[in-house]
Amino acid sequence: VVDVSARELAEDARLALLLEVAGTPKPGNVDRHRDHPDLHFEQFLAGAVGAGEGLAAAAEGAPVGEAFETAVAGMADRAGSNVQFGALMLLVPLVAAAADEDGAVTRQAAADVVVATTVEDAVGFYRAFDHVDVHVEDPPADAEAPDVRRGGDAVEDLRAAGLTLSDVLAASAEEGGVADDLTGGFERTFDAAEAIVDAEGPLADRASSAYLDLLASEPDALVAATHGPRFAESVRERAAEARQAGPDEVERLADQLVAEGKNPGATADLVAGGLFVALRRGVSV
Amino acid sequence: VVDVSARELAEDARLALLLEVAGTPKPGNVDRHRDHPDLHFEQFLAGAVGAGEGLAAAAEGAPVGEAFETAVAGMADRAGSNVQFGALMLLVPLVAAAADEDGAVTRQAAADVVVATTVEDAVGFYRAFDHVDVHVEDPPADAEAPDVRRGGDAVEDLRAAGLTLSDVLAASAEEGGVADDLTGGFERTFDAAEAIVDAEGPLADRASSAYLDLLASEPDALVAATHGPRFAESVRERAAEARQAGPDEVERLADQLVAEGKNPGATADLVAGGLFVALRRGVSV
Repeated sequence: VVDVSARELAEDARLALLLEVAGTPKPGNVDRHRDHPDLHFEQFLAGAVGAGEGLAAAAEGAPVGEAFETAVAGMADRAGSNVQFGALMLLVPLVAAAADEDGAVTRQAAADVVVATTVEDAVGFYRAFDHVDVHVEDPPADAEAPDVRRGGDAVEDLRAAGLTLSDVLAASAEEGGVADDLTGGFERTFDAAEAIVDAEGPLADRASSAYLDLLASEPDALVAATHGPRFAESVRERAAEARQAGPDEVERLADQLVAEGKNPGATADLVAGGLFVALRRGVSV
Repeated sequence: VVDVSARELAEDARLALLLEVAGTPKPGNVDRHRDHPDLHFEQFLAGAVGAGEGLAAAAEGAPVGEAFETAVAGMADRAGSNVQFGALMLLVPLVAAAADEDGAVTRQAAADVVVATTVEDAVGFYRAFDHVDVHVEDPPADAEAPDVRRGGDAVEDLRAAGLTLSDVLAASAEEGGVADDLTGGFERTFDAAEAIVDAEGPLADRASSAYLDLLASEPDALVAATHGPRFAESVRERAAEARQAGPDEVERLADQLVAEGKNPGATADLVAGGLFVALRRGVSV
């Protein structure tokens, strides 16, 4: 029974990644109808397949940091690029939380998984950066944790400082981003899940709708990191206006943001996490 | 090493299913840009995830019939419909053949897997029909094998007749279809693989191009079964003309066939098999 359940959890996480990228329109992100010039739909399909081993490890009770590194390594190997790093940051602890609860997944259980992370989980997290090129801002000079861009080279410093994955995430959490949701009790992830569960129609459409709601309500943390907080706020405003104006404007905004090279990836990551939770609550294609 | 290889084989088969449905334009089939009214893109994503357990079983050496039934049951459970039955008929023996050859896969090894099938493999094949609604024509009155639509109910008759899966497939093989390719040495599957390996550009595009080549060269067996051989030949002619006329005409034909409810699914199945072989030969996204 435990084996079957672990398989189902890993399958739900893989399907969450696939449904996330298939949702359209999803302004600024790769979706069923749009590629970025250097990031193609099929790389996301491959990434979801490659992340499978690490997601299965999380479902079978492997430590979160180790499962995350395995998932990222498999994703990067298959996709040839970083396509789902942030989504996996959410999915790995969510899968672990679901495994702890016989398949259900609550905000409390997910928060508990993050709180319970160890220094070795932080080590796995840092090592994951060796497999991909993730956009990370320069840390402040007085940063508590080693620069994540050092990857596995920072492991000794990390152990010496005795920092857990939870510590590291809290130190780096940008408002509205994935780390913020991980250390703040998964609020946006579960909001997205609820919106997906409550909506009707094809699952990928519900997910793109949840994406638009999130994008219109808070500045995307990846856009803030890559283009600055004012620009992220302008994307939020444009999303809110397009949402108000209707489907044609949303499609237009999707075309515009791709043309401008703006990628609200943090919002997409949160929706991937939300899809997993929604699948665990019984939605299906 | 054996475990890693089995995982890679199952991943390649899953990715083949995903890339197959993502290819566009693929006249008459669900693709990245088109759904059928009762068959949606996301059902194929879910089917590829659900088929994973059976594909992994094939990679780990489970009997072909048993692995096939598991794959079909998982696909049907996740997709809520039959989306990849024919593709799995090809993928399961191809995965088994690759496992027999340390990951490589040759036409000879694939043919050997089919020749070596047993009565119990035929039992698994019949039981797979219990999980889905597959279009099958009335068998001739003097048919050697029990009607596959009887599913698991035919198992005793099957054992009494001592028919292997290879026997059953040979008895039912419609020209140009999946069973025909399985019993005829996987010629079309490997032709598709070669075209995919030799082409350039995104893998899903190469696959849709291989699909069009196949569709233009031989009448689709599923169209022949559902609409008659003359209609299948007319679809072949239209595909050949569109291919000659260029991309705009191919897009138009894709719209037309979906509107007409014509689904050349056998050709798509052959391309899924071809994608798996191409992935084993080293292509990647």
